[in-house]
Amino acid sequence: MSELYVLVMAGGRGVRFWPRSRRSLPKQCIALDEGRTLLQQTVDRLLPLVPVERVLVVTGPDMAPAVRAQLPEVPDENILVEPSGRNTAPCIGWGAVEVGRRGGGKAVMAVLPADHMIENAAELRDVLKGAAEAASNTHALITLGVPPTRPETGFGYLEVGALMGEWNGRAFQMVERFTEKPDEATAQRWLDGESHLWNAGMFVFTVDAIRDAFRSHLPESAEALAAIQRKPERLLELWPQLEATSVDYGIMEQSRHILVAPFRAGWSDVGSWNGVAPFLPEVAGGRGLADTVIAVGAEGCVVHAPGRVVALVGVQDLVVVDAGDALLVMDRHRAGDVREVVAQLEAAGMEKLT
Amino acid sequence: MSELYVLVMAGGRGVRFWPRSRRSLPKQCIALDEGRTLLQQTVDRLLPLVPVERVLVVTGPDMAPAVRAQLPEVPDENILVEPSGRNTAPCIGWGAVEVGRRGGGKAVMAVLPADHMIENAAELRDVLKGAAEAASNTHALITLGVPPTRPETGFGYLEVGALMGEWNGRAFQMVERFTEKPDEATAQRWLDGESHLWNAGMFVFTVDAIRDAFRSHLPESAEALAAIQRKPERLLELWPQLEATSVDYGIMEQSRHILVAPFRAGWSDVGSWNGVAPFLPEVAGGRGLADTVIAVGAEGCVVHAPGRVVALVGVQDLVVVDAGDALLVMDRHRAGDVREVVAQLEAAGMEKLT
Repeated sequence: MSELYVLVMAGGRGVRFWPRSRRSLPKQCIALDEGRTLLQQTVDRLLPLVPVERVLVVTGPDMAPAVRAQLPEVPDENILVEPSGRNTAPCIGWGAVEVGRRGGGKAVMAVLPADHMIENAAELRDVLKGAAEAASNTHALITLGVPPTRPETGFGYLEVGALMGEWNGRAFQMVERFTEKPDEATAQRWLDGESHLWNAGMFVFTVDAIRDAFRSHLPESAEALAAIQRKPERLLELWPQLEATSVDYGIMEQSRHILVAPFRAGWSDVGSWNGVAPFLPEVAGGRGLADTVIAVGAEGCVVHAPGRVVALVGVQDLVVVDAGDALLVMDRHRAGDVREVVAQLEAAGMEKLT
Repeated sequence: MSELYVLVMAGGRGVRFWPRSRRSLPKQCIALDEGRTLLQQTVDRLLPLVPVERVLVVTGPDMAPAVRAQLPEVPDENILVEPSGRNTAPCIGWGAVEVGRRGGGKAVMAVLPADHMIENAAELRDVLKGAAEAASNTHALITLGVPPTRPETGFGYLEVGALMGEWNGRAFQMVERFTEKPDEATAQRWLDGESHLWNAGMFVFTVDAIRDAFRSHLPESAEALAAIQRKPERLLELWPQLEATSVDYGIMEQSRHILVAPFRAGWSDVGSWNGVAPFLPEVAGGRGLADTVIAVGAEGCVVHAPGRVVALVGVQDLVVVDAGDALLVMDRHRAGDVREVVAQLEAAGMEKLT
């Protein structure tokens, strides 16, 4: 098998983690549980599999200083700073150019978001190893799939089909279909059945395979990427020619040759303050981080206020986040609406708080 | 009429205003609406009636520095620092000794809590003027009464009786009875009737009248006060001999000759974060003080976080108070339970936060 590279996608803003996440310190750069940041954990868990010289990180100009500071072991030339955020397809396309420059077209790359939590890192490495073999042997695009553990309506799903082979002792199946977020009844049916997996947003393929996929499905982007490969100094000028779309929509959903193996590693995309709760320590009144939490008739709350004393009186199911200059108090069940707060701050010219 | 003195009672902790109120900076030393503090407002509104040399302030050792700093115009010898808090009777007894020392037994003293809000200061001064005349002419103890504007179950009430005379154009009536906090049905009946007033905890009497009342109802305290009058340097030693009781219970409820005139001055004892709401500016999501409040589906909240940005998402009727080192998030309807938070902090050895 060819050498395995890792491309960590660390360009997101994670706006739903406001006020802790900011443009210059997005979700992946935060230590939600006060240890290593999500970005550091993402790299940490891959290092037993891949030497740090083969770890590449794509990020944006605002957050690049934080990313560099948090990953001193990653060579500076492996931190790829996108001119602007244009969704995941350009990010992965450029990453493939850079991996190809280092390892050639047969190099295998694992593409991983920097802002997910995974309880069982060994299990992730094991399935990645199988996926790398599969990618190397089949020229297929591989996506990672998680067997659902609840009727989740916030994720995309993969419908799996015929068995295609075993690599590293794991059975890989065809992906029949990518599906959008289901309604509750459908999510429950998929939970009860065995043919649907959560789309974890993690991919493995060879440089040649993803390059071919770009040529087939995003031909203009493929042309711009070829030009960037020939003349890296033209990145800034060519970047706007890369179609701003997700790799899921622009490549994966259009492709016929995608493989997947289920992996159960306690995966979570921790998409919101509500989602992060299970990863926080138990405190009075719920879960969280703080100097002290005093609860009087309070329960089910999520607190993130490192170093502060927080008192909760007669409240249930709240999110309380204290970021020093800004404070969020929110119904847990409306954790997605933080976006609206950030939009209002921007509209009010208070961008420095976002 | 003899000279009028004012005795401001500024010794309370105001524990229900935690985390903004602390031992060293209690409720009366806070600017709840970000202008002058409650203590400063209390003195400000009396100065058109009484020269500052006749304003005395009783406080405790913890908070004396803050009181002095906030009232630079009050002569230092008029700041009376109690050795310990022993409720209002000792405070008023000692205050009467000090007023008597300055103005003699016929001097009239108005006793006012430092932590109330009053919208119409002119109306307060007007009724105080009448009360001072009444006190001077009748040797009665005078208490101020507020016609109820809601069926309040958290206050004591005064039942009023026969007309006793007019002073400064105001009709003063006998107090037939002091009553404890009523139940809701009773409070509603008293609101509909005309014979009950809220006990505002403000009193007017001559030094001789209150001294006589101590002799009749708290004779041991009267003896200790007489000794303090003779030898002020024995205060520390004699202080524990003063019965730790309220002037309401120890003196007023035992006396037969109490007068009251109704006054409508927008009085509020702002007993809790819930009670302070009407005095705060309107903000998104409710009322409060903050740099900015962003509300997304939030209403009825009380925010006190000067200089901070606060976002409220999908929450109703919360109190949110940010004091820098401590944060309170509370159901408005449980505003009295802050006491329990402070008790837990003390039990946990975190007194520096109380």
